Amino acid sequence: MSGSRMRLLSHRNVGLLLLSGGGGPSARPLTSPPVCSSSPARALSSLSATRRGLPKEKMSENGMSRAKVLTIDTMNPTVKKVEYAVRGPIVQRAVELERELSEGMKKPFAEVIKANIGDAHAMGQQPITFFRQVLALCSYPELLSDSIFPEDAKNRACRILNSCGGNSLGAYSASQGIESVRQDVARYIERRDGGVPCDPDNIYLTTGASDGIVTMLKLLVCGEGAGRTGVMISIPQYPLYSAALAELGAVQINYYLNEEKCWSLDISELQRALNEARRYCNPRALCIINPGNPTGQVQSRQCIEDVIRFAAKERLFLMADEVYQDNVYAEGCQFHSFKKVLFEMGPEYSESVELASFHSTSKCYMGECGFRGGYMEIINMDDEVKAQLTKLLSVRLCPPVPGQALMDLVVNPPQPGEPSYERFISERTATLSALAEKAKLTEQVLNTVEGIRCNPVQGAMYSFPRITIPEKAIKEATDVGQQPDMFYCMKMLEETGICLVPGSGFGQKDGTYHFRMTILPPKDKLKILLNKVQEFHQKFTQQYS
Amino acid sequence: MSGSRMRLLSHRNVGLLLLSGGGGPSARPLTSPPVCSSSPARALSSLSATRRGLPKEKMSENGMSRAKVLTIDTMNPTVKKVEYAVRGPIVQRAVELERELSEGMKKPFAEVIKANIGDAHAMGQQPITFFRQVLALCSYPELLSDSIFPEDAKNRACRILNSCGGNSLGAYSASQGIESVRQDVARYIERRDGGVPCDPDNIYLTTGASDGIVTMLKLLVCGEGAGRTGVMISIPQYPLYSAALAELGAVQINYYLNEEKCWSLDISELQRALNEARRYCNPRALCIINPGNPTGQVQSRQCIEDVIRFAAKERLFLMADEVYQDNVYAEGCQFHSFKKVLFEMGPEYSESVELASFHSTSKCYMGECGFRGGYMEIINMDDEVKAQLTKLLSVRLCPPVPGQALMDLVVNPPQPGEPSYERFISERTATLSALAEKAKLTEQVLNTVEGIRCNPVQGAMYSFPRITIPEKAIKEATDVGQQPDMFYCMKMLEETGICLVPGSGFGQKDGTYHFRMTILPPKDKLKILLNKVQEFHQKFTQQYS
Repeated sequence: MSGSRMRLLSHRNVGLLLLSGGGGPSARPLTSPPVCSSSPARALSSLSATRRGLPKEKMSENGMSRAKVLTIDTMNPTVKKVEYAVRGPIVQRAVELERELSEGMKKPFAEVIKANIGDAHAMGQQPITFFRQVLALCSYPELLSDSIFPEDAKNRACRILNSCGGNSLGAYSASQGIESVRQDVARYIERRDGGVPCDPDNIYLTTGASDGIVTMLKLLVCGEGAGRTGVMISIPQYPLYSAALAELGAVQINYYLNEEKCWSLDISELQRALNEARRYCNPRALCIINPGNPTGQVQSRQCIEDVIRFAAKERLFLMADEVYQDNVYAEGCQFHSFKKVLFEMGPEYSESVELASFHSTSKCYMGECGFRGGYMEIINMDDEVKAQLTKLLSVRLCPPVPGQALMDLVVNPPQPGEPSYERFISERTATLSALAEKAKLTEQVLNTVEGIRCNPVQGAMYSFPRITIPEKAIKEATDVGQQPDMFYCMKMLEETGICLVPGSGFGQKDGTYHFRMTILPPKDKLKILLNKVQEFHQKFTQQYS
Repeated sequence: MSGSRMRLLSHRNVGLLLLSGGGGPSARPLTSPPVCSSSPARALSSLSATRRGLPKEKMSENGMSRAKVLTIDTMNPTVKKVEYAVRGPIVQRAVELERELSEGMKKPFAEVIKANIGDAHAMGQQPITFFRQVLALCSYPELLSDSIFPEDAKNRACRILNSCGGNSLGAYSASQGIESVRQDVARYIERRDGGVPCDPDNIYLTTGASDGIVTMLKLLVCGEGAGRTGVMISIPQYPLYSAALAELGAVQINYYLNEEKCWSLDISELQRALNEARRYCNPRALCIINPGNPTGQVQSRQCIEDVIRFAAKERLFLMADEVYQDNVYAEGCQFHSFKKVLFEMGPEYSESVELASFHSTSKCYMGECGFRGGYMEIINMDDEVKAQLTKLLSVRLCPPVPGQALMDLVVNPPQPGEPSYERFISERTATLSALAEKAKLTEQVLNTVEGIRCNPVQGAMYSFPRITIPEKAIKEATDVGQQPDMFYCMKMLEETGICLVPGSGFGQKDGTYHFRMTILPPKDKLKILLNKVQEFHQKFTQQYS
């Protein structure tokens, strides 16, 4: 595995990123300083554009330059390196197909099914009634006298509004987030982690988890050349990580999950990746997604302990992406937070290992992506760095306040004895049970197809099956400059209306192919979708055999 | 003026930024590549921390390193350079004072009045009823059958929900923003600009205006050394600009507004700043804030035309921060959008000058800061760059959907004949009239004080008066390492409970001192505040004479 390479999918129209896998020296291009192809206009202060020798064809008749200031050649080169497959060209094509359908064009399908993104409400999941009641009350407090709302919703709304400037969701909050919400988050974490203490001062509310992750990576990046910050990420990964690292000009260090062992994480592979990376960069952080995205595995307590020990030994800042912490389905699997395990390992670790963990309102049973709510907890962060973090966050003023309110409700839902408790529990259970059922169904159906092999979806919201693509199809894809799995997924989209994301957008071992499919569609629709995938795969395999 | 220098205020605990004004070569430190003081750990793959020669005192007994991975010396150096005075140390002290008051500590005041930030609702401004009704309906659609809501609010909520995935605010939107909202924004711009066409494809919804501004700057930054991108910003400026440029490692080019002529913008000063900057960087963009923040001026149509001509001649990308477009109070003043003036200047300009303009839900009569709603319109952007912009935005998934809904309501408010129209107009008028009255009052009272000179507050939400600080006070400030106006504002805060922002946080001509004060407190409170400022200034002047 150590010699294997991965390539992230290249978007024809939006630049090209080739990341070498296995942490070899060929990953180095990311560390070189950005080059701007526009020539510097030194000491040309009073010269007009005309006299600066711009190409003639770019001049209008009056001699004024028609060339754009900002072109693909003169824009920020790190931005060009950014890729984000979850909303890449295949999704753009899906949107086009939807429009064509709505305009009456004939297609071999009646509907586009977007199984590309973890967007639960878009797939028909209903919001939690209590959460939305409180949000409505906060938005329009006149409703506090409306008898249709239960008392606990009103109490919760009053508590939130009392913490807002002018009792309004429309006021800015503190940059770190509303204090009472941070307190509620801290108590939630303490309950979740069996009493391990949590200081609200270590909680930062964020604009979704992505915002927190990018902010932490931003703090970590420094150095040049072989001293440039390297960050270890799993392959397959959620492409936010590769995108953020590309934009920040940091070095992406790939460690490979073990597909044969249900996408588990081997410490020996971490060590291999780290050792190789130390030759050409300064590895400083290790990112873990648990439960996994796109791979759906749930890490064992032992594995988390080993990872923490590894981070301590190798002096790596730990980043734990735990946004799927309530999405655990498989029997025998359980979510363990990095924070809890860290503290159970004793002061030698709990007083030194630096950890940031991330959560969000977008996943689990809530699925409230549109509100962009989230938090991060930071452990053992240097006080001066913490002051810098707060300062940095102040520039963007504050996270969206409705999202903060929602985060508060997630960590402080109705309690036994309160009027909304029963309904809340029943809605939450229904959603999580349905997800568990769909996780099982997805794995089962996909594994009946010859040429598709799917690990158990232990948690999160995705299956990431391995697919066999015939040599003839690989050749045809290569001929048109496409990754084979992009070729496969594009064909599936055009023929069935199903929108998946090719594995190349997440990274995979060279020579292997996958796709990511969410398990979010309602059960009936998911069954149709799985049958269509099955049919398509068989047809595709026949066609290219 | 050309030789003058400005210094941004230094935060003792959060790093230090000295920006040379006038665009001289001493601004160059910002362009040098970030240096990381941690030594690269090349080829040390298998060595433990102990053997890498870390200082002994940082080792625990078992030989494991206790030194933090992330310290002030090893963090991202560009982040350290970021400053944001509007939420700087004076505001942190104000928050402390509020806590001390609430804990019963005795102070020479009963209340802290925060006049540091344009946070209207926090200062008691009421939200527009119609907006909040629609937001409540969107949050909890069960309310659509509630008779307390007017029909137009229900219709608007249905229209918004129909544009959301799964008819829920909880679904992600397209990265560029909800299509129907972008269409409404485009129609609003066309009405505002007397029919100048607007393409919804040029509208990008954002997380407040700040997000749009930072994103545009990010696209523009490239090059190294003398080829590094320079961006022209007004001095005084809104410190988002200096903060973003510092973080991006771009060169800040200062042009000075003319305080003697009511903070007007002279083209000759733009030319001076540009000519000097061309010696050490590659100036590519010109930022204008109109109406002005912190200076409150409203630009004339002629001035805008001159600026556009200058940008065309010098090949600069124009960025027009127009978030205060409805906040115009002074007689004879009128808001002219850069877009409209650009198109009125004919195809020679309207077909070539690249422009991004920004708007927000946070200011004007809405004051809905907490929702983080906003949009930007881009004109004449290169198609390939536009694709890159869309790709970049997709990584953060989407702006907060409630903020998008609110932006839709702002650009598409109740129309004559609709049930909510009268109430909407009366609420909007009341807020804008009160602001106009407070703008006048602020200017009048401050100008009665000897040693304070305040330009007319023609627009926006702030006064930025010049204050005379006695030599003795300047010396005392210098002795304790503070900017004289920070010293002045800190003293005012401790003695009166009034929280203002020192002019040094925005930039000012060397040897001049100012503060920024919002005009947002309710009239009665504003009068008290102005009287206290007057008393304090007199006492301070006496004390240090």
